[in-house]
Amino acid sequence: MKNPFALIPEWVICVDSDNRVLENHAVIVDGATISAIVPWPEAHDHYPQIDLVELPGQALIPGLVNAHTHLAMNLLRGFADDIPLMPWLSEHIWPAEGRHVDPQFVEDGTRLAIAESLRGGVTCFNDMYFFPDTVARVAGEIGIRASVGLITLDFPSAWAGNADEYLRKGLELFEDTRDNALITCMLAPHAPYTVSAETLGKIRKLSDQLGMGVHIHLHETAGEVEQYLQTHGIRPIAKMAELDLLNTRLAAVHMTQLTDDEIATFANCGASVLHCPESNLKLASGTAPVAAMIDAGVNVGIGTDGAASNNDLDMFGEMRSAALSGKDKAGDAAALPAEQILRMASINGAKAIGLDAITGSIEEGKQADLAVVNFNRLELQPVYNPVSHIVYSANRYDISNVWVAGKQMLHNGEHLCFDESALIDNARSWGVRIRSGTV
Amino acid sequence: MKNPFALIPEWVICVDSDNRVLENHAVIVDGATISAIVPWPEAHDHYPQIDLVELPGQALIPGLVNAHTHLAMNLLRGFADDIPLMPWLSEHIWPAEGRHVDPQFVEDGTRLAIAESLRGGVTCFNDMYFFPDTVARVAGEIGIRASVGLITLDFPSAWAGNADEYLRKGLELFEDTRDNALITCMLAPHAPYTVSAETLGKIRKLSDQLGMGVHIHLHETAGEVEQYLQTHGIRPIAKMAELDLLNTRLAAVHMTQLTDDEIATFANCGASVLHCPESNLKLASGTAPVAAMIDAGVNVGIGTDGAASNNDLDMFGEMRSAALSGKDKAGDAAALPAEQILRMASINGAKAIGLDAITGSIEEGKQADLAVVNFNRLELQPVYNPVSHIVYSANRYDISNVWVAGKQMLHNGEHLCFDESALIDNARSWGVRIRSGTV
Repeated sequence: MKNPFALIPEWVICVDSDNRVLENHAVIVDGATISAIVPWPEAHDHYPQIDLVELPGQALIPGLVNAHTHLAMNLLRGFADDIPLMPWLSEHIWPAEGRHVDPQFVEDGTRLAIAESLRGGVTCFNDMYFFPDTVARVAGEIGIRASVGLITLDFPSAWAGNADEYLRKGLELFEDTRDNALITCMLAPHAPYTVSAETLGKIRKLSDQLGMGVHIHLHETAGEVEQYLQTHGIRPIAKMAELDLLNTRLAAVHMTQLTDDEIATFANCGASVLHCPESNLKLASGTAPVAAMIDAGVNVGIGTDGAASNNDLDMFGEMRSAALSGKDKAGDAAALPAEQILRMASINGAKAIGLDAITGSIEEGKQADLAVVNFNRLELQPVYNPVSHIVYSANRYDISNVWVAGKQMLHNGEHLCFDESALIDNARSWGVRIRSGTV
Repeated sequence: MKNPFALIPEWVICVDSDNRVLENHAVIVDGATISAIVPWPEAHDHYPQIDLVELPGQALIPGLVNAHTHLAMNLLRGFADDIPLMPWLSEHIWPAEGRHVDPQFVEDGTRLAIAESLRGGVTCFNDMYFFPDTVARVAGEIGIRASVGLITLDFPSAWAGNADEYLRKGLELFEDTRDNALITCMLAPHAPYTVSAETLGKIRKLSDQLGMGVHIHLHETAGEVEQYLQTHGIRPIAKMAELDLLNTRLAAVHMTQLTDDEIATFANCGASVLHCPESNLKLASGTAPVAAMIDAGVNVGIGTDGAASNNDLDMFGEMRSAALSGKDKAGDAAALPAEQILRMASINGAKAIGLDAITGSIEEGKQADLAVVNFNRLELQPVYNPVSHIVYSANRYDISNVWVAGKQMLHNGEHLCFDESALIDNARSWGVRIRSGTV
């Protein structure tokens, strides 16, 4: 298809500040940008030569933002299930990672995960994993928008030997990707229980100097908070406050264990929360008080977490789980209505990672990061409210078309940028090696 | 395809008493029946002429049992969302039903719902709705296994004017369907708050005389239990015990509000529970203590409830939600492992409605009610444990093939028994009428 082109869906679900849902409108894409949203067919005379993409019975939505994930862990999808967080990590996931994680594992896992993401309507992800240079390179090659975490730990891994080496390699990557329109970086200390206060202090200085966001796991389980309190005499969030890390650049993942004061603190400092409902439920970590946070004014995005703990990168399933578990937690069926949930899966996630000026909603001047949900199935009839349908009835296989920065990535459910059977064969061969425990 | 035939999947997930998962086996279907499960290709010589259905990379599972639904409400899918149970019913659903429910509404809604069910791997459902004679006729015409609820209320509807008329018409239907191998009936008093103790007493006598099961909504919300207690001086379950309705023929839906004694009572009397996690979460009704019930020995099946409160008939989504919300409720990631959840969605549901001798598992001599999950997608790679994959990673569109009583209903994801575009057109025209509020 030539660029510019006009998308003419049944519904344009803008996810702008007014939550507008437009009918009889076209979205004009020019280069990488949404250049106009116009009444249609009235405005057709202004675009006499433009290519038309007619999408009857389909809804155009902002490309979804998976605000917290570990993409390469796709190769460990379903490797160990029905086990609590700490034994799951220490007895299953960490040993497998120790045996297998290297640049090839990260490249192959990330590629599989990006293919899964795009077909499910995700056009932007916020990752945290080893070998972030590989993640950035693969994302750039494919052409998906990526916020790459400059992972930092106080213990060695195949990627780096100590905290200073993690930071040095991370800053090199930051420099290398500064001119890439699709790739941004966040500082990514794993968690307060794996990164010392000294290292967190260095990260705070870098964040201030470079204006970089900070992406960290925080208050995931009651046990983690309790153990930190016993060891350090202070709750992790209070330690983060001491270190001056609670500000608009912070994106804190999980946050299932919160006092009312901690919710107010987050609202006041303008930090964001990245909510991973399915991972938290599956690991029985607790449930984040999402409705209370949103009522207090906290910006909350949604992430799938890695496929090892979820077991997919399905933002449709995650939206549904966020709505259902959020209503249950609030004890209120009116809490977290569908419009709010869709915001969390798009513009709120973009805001949390500092990209809300360019993606996460359908507005003139923003990047053309777009997905189409095809309602022309008996499973989705009748349609009373397309937003409710996206959250409560549709699933990721209902995505028909996807564009990132104006470039089409998916057409009628088929990938334009992947050899799917090669991806499947590659993942199967990893599965055989990982199952056998050999390197 | 000729009958008999041999299904040769990568995995046969039997859901028998040993939860066997077989590789290198064939399932032989002869007429309506599973005649043998044999090692393959070793046993090929015993079946020299048989048609082979080779299913590499795919898993054969028992057809799923949707143990509680209101199929015809598919026409109200997404009609009103994000509203608590009582205003949702009294201000939205009941008025719409009052305007629209008639035999044509039930026929068209049920047909749409059966098409949705079959494509999602459901081969048997347990329904409760007005005009059960229409539900039974449509199910029989299409050829899906159905447990039809003989709905009973103390207030009038388009179907009957008073409790005695509901029961009389229900018993006529029971007589009319006695010779139909696919259709069974259950007495279906709506709930203790809509059906008097006198009527429930009549239903208990009919259940005893005819050996019929009783399908009822029970302890759905805290408000309902509290109001019943205030009005009658007793909790609904205690009233059911007084009326001698707590026995192996009872299938109680929802059950979110339970004391430990009530759980023990259910375990001791052998009654079943039909768990509808997504409906309960979406209406913020509370969460059934499923792990505690199963630990106590209660038989728990899974239902989607109607599409007006869910908003689909997706047993894959329901399995996932049952696992996730059940672990959260129990505070234990090891609670309700995938094998248990799959049992709930198949053999346990069959047991609750009295059909476990003929459906709900893959065993020699049982009816060939079967579904195939196709794992040959990048979203489902790699595969470490096919049962975990079904619960945590697959979705309903991964179903490729379905048979009911040996008759193929779905082939490579395509319906063999429906004109899909006609179904969609019909549902859309209902949507227009219902949205406009006209009859």
